[in-house]
Amino acid sequence: MVEQLPEGLVTPVLVVDADVLDRNIARMAQAARTGGFALRPHAKSHKCAEIAGRQLRAGASGLSVATLSEAEVLAAAGVDDLFVACPLWLDAGRARRLHRLADKVALRVGADSVQAVRRLADAVRGSDRRVEVLVEVDCGARRTGVRAADAGRVAEAGADAGLRVVGAFTFPAHGYDHDPGARERAARDEEQALAEAAESLRERGLDAQVLSGGSTPTAGRHRAGPVGELRPGVYVFNDAQQLAIGTCTADDLALCVATTVISRPARDRFVLDAGSKVLGADRSPWVTGHGHLPRYPDATVTALWEHHAMVRLPEGAPAPALGSVLALVPNHVCTPVNLADELLIARGGVELDRWRVAARGANT
Amino acid sequence: MVEQLPEGLVTPVLVVDADVLDRNIARMAQAARTGGFALRPHAKSHKCAEIAGRQLRAGASGLSVATLSEAEVLAAAGVDDLFVACPLWLDAGRARRLHRLADKVALRVGADSVQAVRRLADAVRGSDRRVEVLVEVDCGARRTGVRAADAGRVAEAGADAGLRVVGAFTFPAHGYDHDPGARERAARDEEQALAEAAESLRERGLDAQVLSGGSTPTAGRHRAGPVGELRPGVYVFNDAQQLAIGTCTADDLALCVATTVISRPARDRFVLDAGSKVLGADRSPWVTGHGHLPRYPDATVTALWEHHAMVRLPEGAPAPALGSVLALVPNHVCTPVNLADELLIARGGVELDRWRVAARGANT
Repeated sequence: MVEQLPEGLVTPVLVVDADVLDRNIARMAQAARTGGFALRPHAKSHKCAEIAGRQLRAGASGLSVATLSEAEVLAAAGVDDLFVACPLWLDAGRARRLHRLADKVALRVGADSVQAVRRLADAVRGSDRRVEVLVEVDCGARRTGVRAADAGRVAEAGADAGLRVVGAFTFPAHGYDHDPGARERAARDEEQALAEAAESLRERGLDAQVLSGGSTPTAGRHRAGPVGELRPGVYVFNDAQQLAIGTCTADDLALCVATTVISRPARDRFVLDAGSKVLGADRSPWVTGHGHLPRYPDATVTALWEHHAMVRLPEGAPAPALGSVLALVPNHVCTPVNLADELLIARGGVELDRWRVAARGANT
Repeated sequence: MVEQLPEGLVTPVLVVDADVLDRNIARMAQAARTGGFALRPHAKSHKCAEIAGRQLRAGASGLSVATLSEAEVLAAAGVDDLFVACPLWLDAGRARRLHRLADKVALRVGADSVQAVRRLADAVRGSDRRVEVLVEVDCGARRTGVRAADAGRVAEAGADAGLRVVGAFTFPAHGYDHDPGARERAARDEEQALAEAAESLRERGLDAQVLSGGSTPTAGRHRAGPVGELRPGVYVFNDAQQLAIGTCTADDLALCVATTVISRPARDRFVLDAGSKVLGADRSPWVTGHGHLPRYPDATVTALWEHHAMVRLPEGAPAPALGSVLALVPNHVCTPVNLADELLIARGGVELDRWRVAARGANT
């Protein structure tokens, strides 16, 4: 239970329940195995070598990252199979960094334009190990990625330039929409986009060995078929948004911000010492507040400033005393992790360890 | 001009225009002097020893901070007069830290309850130097602080416990509201709340030597009268929100995130490599997008993910080429600064220096 906090914490601080973390990692690994999917968890959610190690020991085939610098940090920590799951645009500096990294680990990168794959080809020419490339396709999220039918065109340009293009990837951001059918629909969209991308590659004589999709909301919803690899990230910790859309239960929440009640300006309101500089301010439009308080599930975090969270209680509900330390589960766990230097690891209210957020700030 | 960027940047990165920064610091110092106000700028906006030094040399009487850890970092950097402008709740660890800090610098702290001032009194008893206390009063922001009429009650409890209570402070968060009269009204609210607080202290036989208010939106709007000290923070850099509410012009923007165009999914859209892990996601309800692009002032940053910003152009507007590096001015500058390890200082598109964000993450 993430709300069982050690005594004497210096708040605000990120606290992880070791048991829930381990259970979340094991459950996703088991589900991927059972479904016949390769699992390549997204490390942007934890940025932490200890958690990367646990995911790999549980059977992950490698890790996904969002940036070259995250890849560099995890490579230095001994992770030897990494996918930069973003369309990579190589300037001269990034080209050199990619080359160095490719000599060290099995590396896969994303691209979503002919110009980008040509730059990739120039950068990795002469590398000892061959970088693998996946074309990003848009499955309905309307963020990055080409239309699935255009995947072959980008892939062919890469292959012609000497790149090893091995398939396609997609990210179903629209699986985070609030309506109850969003996750099922996003999973179908991924399947369809990746199937079309594979067909588009085949038409150009290229084999799509890797078709990578998935996210925490859609990971459990794929049918056997085109999707071969899953890249969920948030599932290790879960968060208030996952709870709100029903992809986890309160028992699956592994991370909270421990925060102190510093002010009680009115009977039905109190103020916590955790603001956007610790929690992040990411917030889906449909979320009602800025996090979830397990001990006060009916309370709403109505406003967030840099160092204050305002909590409003339902009529007549008892408020915590000044100085109480509460667990506050963030809306979106990936941003508070990127704001913290370390995670305090606890079990049953006892501190076990502190793990460094090694890739904190590694966003280039 | 903040949009004049050095060549070859590793993006995303925070770039500060040295000339605009110096001008902003000088202008606020001059305005405070002319108006007869003490200036105690809020360091939470920059967290940087070099900028603190510039503010002090320009005539600031000391600095404001939001947390004890920010105070500790600035004290270590040589700042010797600090006000923790938050209602401080002292647990055992914070009590020890406050005691150590009080032996080192002239320290002032905030409190907004009788319980909090009693804890403060216990903590500083026996200290070599006397910590000064200001009672926080609410001037309409509805965040922390007691009603102005209750300031005397809290102050008296502090004085009775042996504390040196020297006045009151307030923060006009509602000065950030969008309607054009908000800043003027908030400035009047501060004046009224601080005048009432002073009266409330006097009724208990206590002298209000310090009445501290101010913020970047209201700093230039105070009449001679109750407010004696101003605590603006954002003005050193300004940001897209200040531009939107008219407290600065585009020429006063001193900080941007330099970011690369990594994808062009459609003719009227492009994607930048700066997301909420670099920009922060703070966003006033009335702001139309996630930042301001000086070179594309009519474009809107319509969506932000952790590593992507989606920009939409007006019909028919020319889009930047893939790989272009653009200046993106964040909505609220205080959160991106807290996400960065350093600030790149430039003048006329040439890198001059890199300054460490020494108090990055110092939020306890």
